[in-house]
Amino acid sequence: MDYQKVIEEVYQEVVEENPRGKVANYIPELARVNADQFGIALVDLKGQVYGVGDYLTPFSIQSISKVHTLTMVFHVFKSKLWSRVNVEPSGNPFNSIAQLEYEKGIPRNPFINAGALVISDALCGKFESPTRQIQDFINEISGNTCVSVNHEVKKSEQNHAERNTALAYFLKAYKNFDNDIAEVLDVYFSHCAMEMSCVDLARSFSFLANDGYSIFAEREIVSESHARRINALMLTCGFYDESGEFAFRVGLPGKSGVGGGVAAVMPHKFSIAVWSPELNEKGNSVKAVKALELLTDKLEFSLF
Amino acid sequence: MDYQKVIEEVYQEVVEENPRGKVANYIPELARVNADQFGIALVDLKGQVYGVGDYLTPFSIQSISKVHTLTMVFHVFKSKLWSRVNVEPSGNPFNSIAQLEYEKGIPRNPFINAGALVISDALCGKFESPTRQIQDFINEISGNTCVSVNHEVKKSEQNHAERNTALAYFLKAYKNFDNDIAEVLDVYFSHCAMEMSCVDLARSFSFLANDGYSIFAEREIVSESHARRINALMLTCGFYDESGEFAFRVGLPGKSGVGGGVAAVMPHKFSIAVWSPELNEKGNSVKAVKALELLTDKLEFSLF
Amino acid sequence: MDYQKVIEEVYQEVVEENPRGKVANYIPELARVNADQFGIALVDLKGQVYGVGDYLTPFSIQSISKVHTLTMVFHVFKSKLWSRVNVEPSGNPFNSIAQLEYEKGIPRNPFINAGALVISDALCGKFESPTRQIQDFINEISGNTCVSVNHEVKKSEQNHAERNTALAYFLKAYKNFDNDIAEVLDVYFSHCAMEMSCVDLARSFSFLANDGYSIFAEREIVSESHARRINALMLTCGFYDESGEFAFRVGLPGKSGVGGGVAAVMPHKFSIAVWSPELNEKGNSVKAVKALELLTDKLEFSLF
Amino acid sequence: MDYQKVIEEVYQEVVEENPRGKVANYIPELARVNADQFGIALVDLKGQVYGVGDYLTPFSIQSISKVHTLTMVFHVFKSKLWSRVNVEPSGNPFNSIAQLEYEKGIPRNPFINAGALVISDALCGKFESPTRQIQDFINEISGNTCVSVNHEVKKSEQNHAERNTALAYFLKAYKNFDNDIAEVLDVYFSHCAMEMSCVDLARSFSFLANDGYSIFAEREIVSESHARRINALMLTCGFYDESGEFAFRVGLPGKSGVGGGVAAVMPHKFSIAVWSPELNEKGNSVKAVKALELLTDKLEFSLF
Repeated sequence: MDYQKVIEEVYQEVVEENPRGKVANYIPELARVNADQFGIALVDLKGQVYGVGDYLTPFSIQSISKVHTLTMVFHVFKSKLWSRVNVEPSGNPFNSIAQLEYEKGIPRNPFINAGALVISDALCGKFESPTRQIQDFINEISGNTCVSVNHEVKKSEQNHAERNTALAYFLKAYKNFDNDIAEVLDVYFSHCAMEMSCVDLARSFSFLANDGYSIFAEREIVSESHARRINALMLTCGFYDESGEFAFRVGLPGKSGVGGGVAAVMPHKFSIAVWSPELNEKGNSVKAVKALELLTDKLEFSLF
Repeated sequence: MDYQKVIEEVYQEVVEENPRGKVANYIPELARVNADQFGIALVDLKGQVYGVGDYLTPFSIQSISKVHTLTMVFHVFKSKLWSRVNVEPSGNPFNSIAQLEYEKGIPRNPFINAGALVISDALCGKFESPTRQIQDFINEISGNTCVSVNHEVKKSEQNHAERNTALAYFLKAYKNFDNDIAEVLDVYFSHCAMEMSCVDLARSFSFLANDGYSIFAEREIVSESHARRINALMLTCGFYDESGEFAFRVGLPGKSGVGGGVAAVMPHKFSIAVWSPELNEKGNSVKAVKALELLTDKLEFSLF
Repeated sequence: MDYQKVIEEVYQEVVEENPRGKVANYIPELARVNADQFGIALVDLKGQVYGVGDYLTPFSIQSISKVHTLTMVFHVFKSKLWSRVNVEPSGNPFNSIAQLEYEKGIPRNPFINAGALVISDALCGKFESPTRQIQDFINEISGNTCVSVNHEVKKSEQNHAERNTALAYFLKAYKNFDNDIAEVLDVYFSHCAMEMSCVDLARSFSFLANDGYSIFAEREIVSESHARRINALMLTCGFYDESGEFAFRVGLPGKSGVGGGVAAVMPHKFSIAVWSPELNEKGNSVKAVKALELLTDKLEFSLF
Repeated sequence: MDYQKVIEEVYQEVVEENPRGKVANYIPELARVNADQFGIALVDLKGQVYGVGDYLTPFSIQSISKVHTLTMVFHVFKSKLWSRVNVEPSGNPFNSIAQLEYEKGIPRNPFINAGALVISDALCGKFESPTRQIQDFINEISGNTCVSVNHEVKKSEQNHAERNTALAYFLKAYKNFDNDIAEVLDVYFSHCAMEMSCVDLARSFSFLANDGYSIFAEREIVSESHARRINALMLTCGFYDESGEFAFRVGLPGKSGVGGGVAAVMPHKFSIAVWSPELNEKGNSVKAVKALELLTDKLEFSLF
């Protein structure tokens, strides 16, 4: 399979069609990004990289980092975690607090904000220096010292933190939050403000395409069974309130972020990261989603 | 792969563990069924059947028939249908009317009751004798004159039809219902009251494991792309408010019914039907879900 | 107190300010009404009538009739009724079905549509010819053969009955509906389609200003205690999702209808009916609400 | 009218019937109170006090203080306040965050927790030392240096503050919160932890029975029109999700607190405070509600 040719074709077609959205503007740091950027990086099971466009440019991975943090505690806590966070698609916006009330403080899944806060809280209970260790972990599985926290972005998020802080206090009201709220939020905003390029991001997702084994870290990151479950979660819950649509049109497990990135995997084939800042109204990158739809059509690959 | 051996092992282990639930009792006809029945039928891509337990006993397929009816209109209406019904997991009970109100009469997906009613309505707009044609279609794709409507069950459902009738009127209030309500409900209750055995049900799902081509009907039932999308929908929405959990633990596209049946597919490998009447509190058969979980573990097959 | 002078001043001021809204247009019959009509009729405890503007013109009383029907069964069923319908303000639109689901089929109060349907159902269980008897009752308490059902309006409502029919089936699903749905809806649409003038309407509310005794019927319609409770219900629930606002600004128990009418009482002083077809976005007549606000200011009367 | 005789009869009948509930136990300080205490104090328009039972014992007034704080800003801000908080009954528990989300950060009324936090925030924007000034205000209108903050209760509340803190951050996310959250919460918990006896509480509500004029402060506290509006708000929203029931059964404007107190007014007649710690499931004192129901029956007084 000539992946390079395929992603170049995909790139070209998306550039020509040029579907447009709106750059995330809830914080100034994200709003300032050049909206025209667009890159694709695909990494096959042997670690071979295929890239096109701005695939070497670091960008804010935002919620995609929730897959990394989930992986870190999934591995450690195993089934105990699932009494604190559910695995069901939410059917509501990612930052809804109403649902958390209806479900008595148990977030629907680890990718909505409330669920990711529980994961960050679990990390804080386990690790001494969670932010540094998240970075170390991502560097390890991408085989590259690639991750940095953009402190402007982080500070900007912290200045707009009211809703996430409300979620954290609400979780604490339901006794589903163990550590100091400010400390956990600091970790949360740090990992959301991390920056990597498409190529590093695709490499960091490689273990999910490979039954849990990372060829870059040269070790099993999670068991095969856990890798499958993380993929299942991404498929059902990875794209906010558009997860069903993405499964329906693309059919790959993946996770999006409001920075315009999407990381996805075709199990036993490849991992892939696509990035372009303009988002549709559900908060997913229009060009990235389009690119992945074209790609699966061309490759005739799909889970299904 | 010795499928026969594997399903026999699975059968044995489930029988030994003997997880228990509660037979559906909202209508007397379903409540009366012998709760101990349990059967598994697996059909490989060549049409070879593997079976164990009560796999030849017909049972009430209930909501599993919604995959058949969706297939019939998916094929016919293509994308137009998706302005009338969404493809997102619901995060609510299957018969919730509140969600339908919040989303202005557009059901979240074709497998919750409101969505299936829209599909039945679309069938009534397309076919002269929808109920007969649903039967003909299922018979064709299972390669057997196997389907019958259990009129006792149907009548019983009609005597408890208030909630579904309310959903139908509500859809009509939102102009998302074209035909006579009584006529559409008759079709809906007819297909929910259909009975088939595990083996016939597994055969009727074979085309979904085979990129849309039925070896029993000897024709393409839907395009490869549509088959993939139906599978994606089953994965994200096939198990009511437990779809995420099923994807997480089992990882196969499938559809359950309150009669205790589950039909599922492993794309490019096999289709399978499992049946046992006792349900968990989300309305899914406890033995069938357990059996499929063990099966995918043993086969080391999963989408992910 | 020179009531005639006061209502003429109020009338004049409202005409000059001329606040505008939108005539109800969900059925053609209501949409066709002349939007400029405006009348006020006040009836004191001795039965003396004061009127201005179009106070003799019959109009569609719509939901105001729910006070009459409630009175008929309040009297008959006493406390038993209150297991079937609650007395709390709803905080939701009048025809919401979501709330009915959350509260398991018990409508929040007798003035939202679901609650009024329960009242109509109770009427059907008690009376042989409910529609005729509602008319007889209103005629009796207004001291005039004044009520007629506008069959064009009724038919028009029936042609847009999907949402109310859905509510009725939903109530039946919760076993909170005893009689035939079509029969109850016929009664419901009949009383909503009744027409009366402001003067007759004000007279029909006179017993609520007079501790339950009607000087027109020359008998106690309900006990003093029941009259007080009906007034309390009107104050907390009489204006859809604007009941708090009306209590806050006007401070009289009252009930509005989408025909543009409002009937209200000042206990131990007078009853009043105001009518003008243009509605605000909550479905209450803009001129009628304004007039009542000015009136209570001028009279320095208020419950509070 | 021999008020003393009437309240003694009421007291006796309630003691004999002895309806039971459950003392608030969400904080230890409230749980520890002697559940058998029960007192009634009535203050007529001339300032004459009638009392029975534990009417001189200070208790935690909790949410009743929200009427005092609302009065302080009602007076100052006038209509501007009502863009930040609505006047509609909520139909939801007093601490619901879901409703706040549906209504985009505008609390339904000033008596649910979110609304009272907005009022406390407004106080912090207006006054230098809000807590002291609330005390001064209550002392002034009760004509007695009677109010103290119970610091054990306050500290206890602060140790269970997660939910209210979540509400505050949520309000801030919607830009409906101006001041420092910790400072506003301090004021909020201070006024909720204030203690007064029935007699002082009844005196502090006297101005609401007297068109806004306090005979104890010897000045107009709010205009007649504002007094009426505060009474209207208490009637529609003063008893959490049981406001309709209280209006229906008792028919007086009033406000309850989880300390077991209820303060109410009969406009142009008297103000009254009743206290007994055991609450019904909606959070209102069972004995206090019963006493007020009997009282209005005996006095044949009611708004309606």
